[in-house]
Amino acid sequence: MGAREGGFAVTYRSLQRATTLDRVCSMRTHTTYRIFETARRQEIIDITDDVEACRAEADITEGMILVSAMHISASVFVNDHEPGLWQDIQQWLEERIAPWSPDDYRHNRGTGEDNAAAHLRSLTLGHEVIVPVTAGRLDLGPWQRIFYGEWDGQRPKRVIFKALGT
Amino acid sequence: MGAREGGFAVTYRSLQRATTLDRVCSMRTHTTYRIFETARRQEIIDITDDVEACRAEADITEGMILVSAMHISASVFVNDHEPGLWQDIQQWLEERIAPWSPDDYRHNRGTGEDNAAAHLRSLTLGHEVIVPVTAGRLDLGPWQRIFYGEWDGQRPKRVIFKALGT
Amino acid sequence: MGAREGGFAVTYRSLQRATTLDRVCSMRTHTTYRIFETARRQEIIDITDDVEACRAEADITEGMILVSAMHISASVFVNDHEPGLWQDIQQWLEERIAPWSPDDYRHNRGTGEDNAAAHLRSLTLGHEVIVPVTAGRLDLGPWQRIFYGEWDGQRPKRVIFKALGT
Repeated sequence: MGAREGGFAVTYRSLQRATTLDRVCSMRTHTTYRIFETARRQEIIDITDDVEACRAEADITEGMILVSAMHISASVFVNDHEPGLWQDIQQWLEERIAPWSPDDYRHNRGTGEDNAAAHLRSLTLGHEVIVPVTAGRLDLGPWQRIFYGEWDGQRPKRVIFKALGT
Repeated sequence: MGAREGGFAVTYRSLQRATTLDRVCSMRTHTTYRIFETARRQEIIDITDDVEACRAEADITEGMILVSAMHISASVFVNDHEPGLWQDIQQWLEERIAPWSPDDYRHNRGTGEDNAAAHLRSLTLGHEVIVPVTAGRLDLGPWQRIFYGEWDGQRPKRVIFKALGT
Repeated sequence: MGAREGGFAVTYRSLQRATTLDRVCSMRTHTTYRIFETARRQEIIDITDDVEACRAEADITEGMILVSAMHISASVFVNDHEPGLWQDIQQWLEERIAPWSPDDYRHNRGTGEDNAAAHLRSLTLGHEVIVPVTAGRLDLGPWQRIFYGEWDGQRPKRVIFKALGT
């Protein structure tokens, strides 16, 4: 039973299983890059298969894969493969989190760009995730998928996939 | 002295200490999972002791531990063990960041669910952290604790703890 | 060509290149800390050179570096070295994401502090990043720089840099 905090009722907490793997002399890294050039300025793309491809090429069965956008107006995140939600995310970013409104930002006035809001969206959702690898597969929950979020596209942009493991 | 940017005054920057450990042939991984079934639909639970338990089981003294929610309506984050703040976080998510308002989201209309806001809260706070391990302990600051944030609970949900180190 | 989702038009997806490095018996960790004491209560500081210094000291050519604030009212993030944007970020945090308004938060009433908003800003931008290292250098995109975001400064605060690689 977990300790209780903040006046909440009892929460069940259980240990499911544990595995230990001591891999002598076989830790390796493997790096791939992919370029995305979206047709729309904002898009959300499922890249889970790209992450698995990196894992397979790296030939690791235990470890982690860093998936990181190499641009400052894009995100990498984990969530649901559900098109309605992807539209919700884009509407939420526009209406509640960081409206595009180019005239509202100093960045746009100083640089001649209009994408300050894309930077703020990248910061809110983050630009990277770490995906665990266990027993030869991406160790994701049943609904977890990995996404590239493009907030200022229509030009080539890179994502790095770096595996570290055994 | 750090370089100054943006018109700010001088900021002091110092190197505190450095350690290097070259561990030949002993890098290992260790993976545990815990299931949380919260009594309330939203809860914040301190899981720092669970992370330390993973570190001890893994028997690593140098490295990192990935702590990652395996569900898309939950978060893992680092902040303060202070119940007032936990209430502030939940009120802030509800009132400012992502109101529950189930009728406002396409995700809810298409899937029969009502938890689109829980997905957006997961995205805002993130679903994972990496905890450094140094000299045989979690290398956290004096006030840092690790939390599981449940945004759509009352059912069993998993968190993965994966240690990588020596 | 990437699979299309959500009714969007076709998006180009290409594999750029891949490298695999199997480093037998040479995985190592290296840890440094830096202390920042900002002159202003809120500041954004470019710490990319500090991260590169950690990489050089660690003498790793392949791997990752964890850069993590050790305080719960600060952030570490990756974005643009552009002073107008830094001002935009601070204004956006104050006006849209988490206003300072000390009377609005339970945390401030219970603890005698006034910095609850700094905690929420830390949660929004995150407190850590993982920087990939490839071929002996930080593997960042052309505009990516690494920043320390201080949301409650004017006192010494630490950041940990932990390299893991070969």
